[in-house]
Amino acid sequence: MCSLLRKWRQIQSPLVTVITGKSNFSINKKIHIFPYTSPRFASFTRVVPQHNIESKRSLSSTLAGDFELIYRRLMSKDEIREFETVMPDVVNDLVSIAERHKSKEAGEWFGKSLLYNLSLSNNKIGLIPVLTYKSLAKGDQLNPEHLKLAHILGWCFEMMICFILMVDDLVDKSTTRRGQLCWHTLEEVGLFAINDAILIENGLYELLNKHFRKLDCYVDLIELFHQNTFKCICGQSFDMLLTKKNVTTFNMETYDSLVMNKTSSHFFYLPVFVGLHLAGVKDRKVFDESESIIFDLGHYSQVQNDFHDCFGKYEYTGKIGTDIETNKCSWLAVKCMELANAEQRSIIAECYGHNDPQKIARVKQIYEELDMLNIYAKYEEETCRRILMNIQKTSDAVPRDILIEILCQIYDKQIK
Amino acid sequence: MCSLLRKWRQIQSPLVTVITGKSNFSINKKIHIFPYTSPRFASFTRVVPQHNIESKRSLSSTLAGDFELIYRRLMSKDEIREFETVMPDVVNDLVSIAERHKSKEAGEWFGKSLLYNLSLSNNKIGLIPVLTYKSLAKGDQLNPEHLKLAHILGWCFEMMICFILMVDDLVDKSTTRRGQLCWHTLEEVGLFAINDAILIENGLYELLNKHFRKLDCYVDLIELFHQNTFKCICGQSFDMLLTKKNVTTFNMETYDSLVMNKTSSHFFYLPVFVGLHLAGVKDRKVFDESESIIFDLGHYSQVQNDFHDCFGKYEYTGKIGTDIETNKCSWLAVKCMELANAEQRSIIAECYGHNDPQKIARVKQIYEELDMLNIYAKYEEETCRRILMNIQKTSDAVPRDILIEILCQIYDKQIK
Repeated sequence: MCSLLRKWRQIQSPLVTVITGKSNFSINKKIHIFPYTSPRFASFTRVVPQHNIESKRSLSSTLAGDFELIYRRLMSKDEIREFETVMPDVVNDLVSIAERHKSKEAGEWFGKSLLYNLSLSNNKIGLIPVLTYKSLAKGDQLNPEHLKLAHILGWCFEMMICFILMVDDLVDKSTTRRGQLCWHTLEEVGLFAINDAILIENGLYELLNKHFRKLDCYVDLIELFHQNTFKCICGQSFDMLLTKKNVTTFNMETYDSLVMNKTSSHFFYLPVFVGLHLAGVKDRKVFDESESIIFDLGHYSQVQNDFHDCFGKYEYTGKIGTDIETNKCSWLAVKCMELANAEQRSIIAECYGHNDPQKIARVKQIYEELDMLNIYAKYEEETCRRILMNIQKTSDAVPRDILIEILCQIYDKQIK
Repeated sequence: MCSLLRKWRQIQSPLVTVITGKSNFSINKKIHIFPYTSPRFASFTRVVPQHNIESKRSLSSTLAGDFELIYRRLMSKDEIREFETVMPDVVNDLVSIAERHKSKEAGEWFGKSLLYNLSLSNNKIGLIPVLTYKSLAKGDQLNPEHLKLAHILGWCFEMMICFILMVDDLVDKSTTRRGQLCWHTLEEVGLFAINDAILIENGLYELLNKHFRKLDCYVDLIELFHQNTFKCICGQSFDMLLTKKNVTTFNMETYDSLVMNKTSSHFFYLPVFVGLHLAGVKDRKVFDESESIIFDLGHYSQVQNDFHDCFGKYEYTGKIGTDIETNKCSWLAVKCMELANAEQRSIIAECYGHNDPQKIARVKQIYEELDMLNIYAKYEEETCRRILMNIQKTSDAVPRDILIEILCQIYDKQIK
């Protein structure tokens, strides 16, 4: 892994130059179909002009191909396998802690809930702290004992995400997650899933206490988890409150604040930052520069998520989108409000936020009329280039490889 | 307040001697009707033998009267008023933190949820950290700045209890708490109460971060809150899992483990311990001796709670008991299983855990036949005396006044 990382560092700079369009140097010529024409997207009733697709496809194939090259190097199958081998220890630790006070039954139940819910992740998100640590750790820090700690930290992060998604599924009354039944839909669980989610949330602090208490970064780790949980749950409140407003009031400023709270903070900020702390990074500049990139990554990821909610196919997203009928302040709705003419605005105002198939279809039709598919493709293209350019501008101590890795993963929608 | 505390210390020792029956010295001759004959209890169809009531009443009036004398001195109206004056600052702090990332709406909603849910407490539980701190703090530690910190810590504890009760109400689908509608029953809230509960839970760590970060006890405080939340939620799991077992399998050993997790830990252990840490207590013996008493107090409180679930009147408990129909492993069921004859056992086995008014009535009838009212009264009498005796045996550095105060509050069912 370390040699791969070193190799990646050697190729990183020219690659960024290529992708940001400053050179003709190309690493990967492999043709990669740009997402919006791939089977991941539900087909429209109206055919999108072919010349548009063609021009964008040729623009994006290099980007896509290069991304593929990068992420295969960091989030490798070996890395994921190694990460997964630590899971039984983590679950055993937690079950033992739960059984501490003669409540064997509670421990067993907790183990069952952990195994079920953690298995709904593809474990890539939990690899970010590990990869960040590996990217910055030096010498002795890369011994098996320290690497095990990095893996446990990755599982703490998986637990946090798991807890947030469980709560989200409960509140939204979702029935599936990644194509599998949500825990709360199981007959023997129901609303008791609230308890199970909170146990997973608090379990991560038990793990931190057990394994990190003696380290200098212990308090920083605890605080990062807390503050990001708080911020993220605030974001969920904000999200819910916005669904009570009229779609005509949605705008990009509100959307940006929403995303700042809802996604950026925990999905990417937290795993990179805990990795930095574990590696002993103290330079404030490294944190600040990383933070700025991470917020952009979080924003891009949420926009993509909103786009997929409407245009993604179930086989790929594993969920059925409900943003239109639940009156979500989604990127598509905001963008649509910016671009719609008076007639289109009045149709959206009439149809958005209603659980009526005909009204939902009318909203989708307006999205189509406004060419949202291509608007999104353009947004994605520009955003990826901008983020890559900004990563290139960061100081050498910033874990650029990790930031690019996250970008690649979002681009290929592998990370959530 | 401090002079009262000093005065209390002077009278404490002879009082304990009186209550444990080692002397004829009496402080308070005021007649106080022992709870089981008070209107707090639903009347039985069968009249409890009068001579039993009389003998117990005379036995208990001294105990009750003395308790009344004690708790009025510590948890005074002035103390509660002073505690409540800090609440607006706490809510403002939390709302500002929630609004940190341009989510004004989320901040406002959080403020609304905090005010509603915290108002469901009588604030006595939050006074425990304050009183513990005051009881042990010396000199400069009693200046307004430090006392404000003690009050904030009390509110952190109120928030934790508030969060746990909100989750409990959601899982149990309760509709009222202390005679007021539960937050989740409000039309604009519903399942979103899960989010609000988690925000209150995480908000307390934001408060700790803001006000206690520079203190030596910061990490201890965070860990105490975490570990007790984890333990308590494990207890809730255990409680739920036991409801799936047959009533005939319930026994006192299981009940003791359940109570150890479900109640003792957070209701009394946590507020006393955070108070000890804030006061800078380092002597392990003080913690260990206090812990042993606190577990007894928690056990007594849970037994009382179980008793009231069946025999308490709505006007006093503010809730309608459901332990019988929900198959709870309650003290009454366990005690009943110990005492019942073969015929009674088979009736309980047939009727317990069914939401059928006739079956519930049959269970209550067996409780009556077994004289559970008097068995409980005897348990309460013996338990209070034993706990008082054990408090008397503790080292001088243990906050005996606080432990007795808690006992008095439980006895008068003022604390939950």
